[in-house]
Amino acid sequence: MKVMVGGTFDPLHAGHRKLLSRSFELAGSSGEVIIGLTTDDFASAKVHPVHPYDKRLENITSFIREQGYTATWKVEPLADRYGSALDADFDILVVSEETFPVAVEINELRRERGRKKVDLYEVSCVLAEDGRRISSTRIYRGEIDRQGRLLK
Amino acid sequence: MKVMVGGTFDPLHAGHRKLLSRSFELAGSSGEVIIGLTTDDFASAKVHPVHPYDKRLENITSFIREQGYTATWKVEPLADRYGSALDADFDILVVSEETFPVAVEINELRRERGRKKVDLYEVSCVLAEDGRRISSTRIYRGEIDRQGRLLK
Repeated sequence: MKVMVGGTFDPLHAGHRKLLSRSFELAGSSGEVIIGLTTDDFASAKVHPVHPYDKRLENITSFIREQGYTATWKVEPLADRYGSALDADFDILVVSEETFPVAVEINELRRERGRKKVDLYEVSCVLAEDGRRISSTRIYRGEIDRQGRLLK
Repeated sequence: MKVMVGGTFDPLHAGHRKLLSRSFELAGSSGEVIIGLTTDDFASAKVHPVHPYDKRLENITSFIREQGYTATWKVEPLADRYGSALDADFDILVVSEETFPVAVEINELRRERGRKKVDLYEVSCVLAEDGRRISSTRIYRGEIDRQGRLLK
């Protein structure tokens, strides 16, 4: 299977790791994973500061290598909400609960362009110790760490 | 992975087959698939006549055997929109585009009950020759066959 996933992945927390892991599991050992990584310009809309593209790319690369996945993979810059997902030929788009609406939008736009709709995989959010969602914003605020442990 | 999927599966068309195939692929060769099959009472709300439960069960069973999947599987009666998906311990709920809202509802109800949300997999619909969706209703009306070929 050919799988696409996108995000800013910063800081790379347990939710992001689940998103990437599921993408590789869905692709299978001989499949392909395309990771859209938001450009610094696009990511600057975030409410918290974000590490530069190259640093985020390095963190993702280290994580994937550590996991030992065998699928082919590449990271490509994502300069808007859709990236190459509107036109690429692929099977499954992996999203979080928050970004599921964007996936539905991508499928609608694909249909308008005469492309086949893709399957959508919504990864359920990873909860922190307090039962609330792990998010980059909460980590940036110092409420939790990347594993979701409470710091306050 | 433990996967759940539900439906009336009648007549068993290309869309249903994709739903079942994806469920087994997601479960993996040593995983488990639970198929909720609507009861005759519950299925009677459909706009078209439906074969009895036992006949539908037989068709699903034949399809799964033909495919040679090795995951453990069972069919259980689905007497309402949720079945055992509200309380069961499983990983992925597989749905069609039409039934995705029910999956979201199931996750909300699970959370209210203190259960973990599950990942959701939306299988994109299979199109008939005319580019419109394959559905049981269209087959029943004689517009298309189970593979989506036009009959009129």
